[in-house]
Amino acid sequence: MDKAAFFKLSYGLYVVTSKKNGQLNGQIANTAIQVTSDPPTIAVCINKQNLTHEFIRSSRIFAVSIISRSTPMTFIGHFGFKSGRDFNKFENMNYKTGVTGAPIVLDNTIAYIETEVMKELDCGTHTIFVGEVRDCGILKSDEEPMTYAFYHEVKGGKSPKTAPTYQEPVKEKVEKSAKYTCSVCGYTYDPEKGDPDSGVKPGTTFEDLPADWTCPVCGADKSKFETEG
Amino acid sequence: MDKAAFFKLSYGLYVVTSKKNGQLNGQIANTAIQVTSDPPTIAVCINKQNLTHEFIRSSRIFAVSIISRSTPMTFIGHFGFKSGRDFNKFENMNYKTGVTGAPIVLDNTIAYIETEVMKELDCGTHTIFVGEVRDCGILKSDEEPMTYAFYHEVKGGKSPKTAPTYQEPVKEKVEKSAKYTCSVCGYTYDPEKGDPDSGVKPGTTFEDLPADWTCPVCGADKSKFETEG
Repeated sequence: MDKAAFFKLSYGLYVVTSKKNGQLNGQIANTAIQVTSDPPTIAVCINKQNLTHEFIRSSRIFAVSIISRSTPMTFIGHFGFKSGRDFNKFENMNYKTGVTGAPIVLDNTIAYIETEVMKELDCGTHTIFVGEVRDCGILKSDEEPMTYAFYHEVKGGKSPKTAPTYQEPVKEKVEKSAKYTCSVCGYTYDPEKGDPDSGVKPGTTFEDLPADWTCPVCGADKSKFETEG
Repeated sequence: MDKAAFFKLSYGLYVVTSKKNGQLNGQIANTAIQVTSDPPTIAVCINKQNLTHEFIRSSRIFAVSIISRSTPMTFIGHFGFKSGRDFNKFENMNYKTGVTGAPIVLDNTIAYIETEVMKELDCGTHTIFVGEVRDCGILKSDEEPMTYAFYHEVKGGKSPKTAPTYQEPVKEKVEKSAKYTCSVCGYTYDPEKGDPDSGVKPGTTFEDLPADWTCPVCGADKSKFETEG
């Protein structure tokens, strides 16, 4: 069984959002599919450990924000590699409240679909939620949607451990290199560029980064970084 | 509600196959997603009217053949716009029988995943089948998978009426043009090229095609063709 076959399935990349008792949350998902045309329904597949799962279970609504191909890694890290249990992901985020009450992310979003959950299927670690569409629309008609392949190949992204598509990384031969890659989210630290957002000047080697420096995308600490193979 | 938002969801393109009492069948689907990683499961969404639905219901197995970007329209038409009730789709087709007994298409296939159905969810016109993976593998590692976007944008493909993503076409202003497009599958008849596979020479106008000429992709008759808007 060559599990590399799974990587040949094609997906998009979405922010799936919901609410619970006035609280908002959202997460990155690569599985959002249309199920029926009449009535229009869509399905998402969500890990039971995620806060968004708890919110959808409670409110019976979810919205899908379809993000553009130009979405920065930090935005994906914000929704995809951090938990809404630790902070409010919607603080300082542009969003609107949809007809269902679910938040629709406006930053980097080209289209949205919001739904009321009609059915769900328990699939072990994940639940498939099927929602009937209550509203949908285009926000940016001239931009291409982000695909999962583009995220992996061009942006160098990885899957979090709670994703359906997560696979244990294969350790490759490590060569001496000044660049270090975050094993959690795929962000690469390049000494030539530094990390200006965190006050790290260009020319700073990985070794010289402060001990409390963390990945600007996902917040992982230095021990989670590996030199490139 | 602007349903154009649905078109921003990203999919691949697959041949989903199954069997029943020694008979084989398969159909094109754009929805195949990984659901869980441990154990590995994948889901497909199948229209209840389709013969493949009947076969999966009966045998509780399905296989997904992931087709390449270079797959010709005639192959997609063979599996996607014709019914296995009318003929045996596997006659003259290269395939192997998988460990589950499901046929795995070898023509145009870059990878395959075969499963045993563990769960299903009735979604009105369609059923979501979730299968636990029994075998999977790569057949052509150097080719890109076909995506639904590529099929639509580059190949000019359409959705059959039984697809989750089908939408009624909007009639556009018809201009006089010598090219005619099949309203069923999207194939375009170009008089400059003719239809050599059916013995129609280059330079033959659409009007001059024999009355019994049919679409080389899906088999629709001349009345199903429209001039381009």
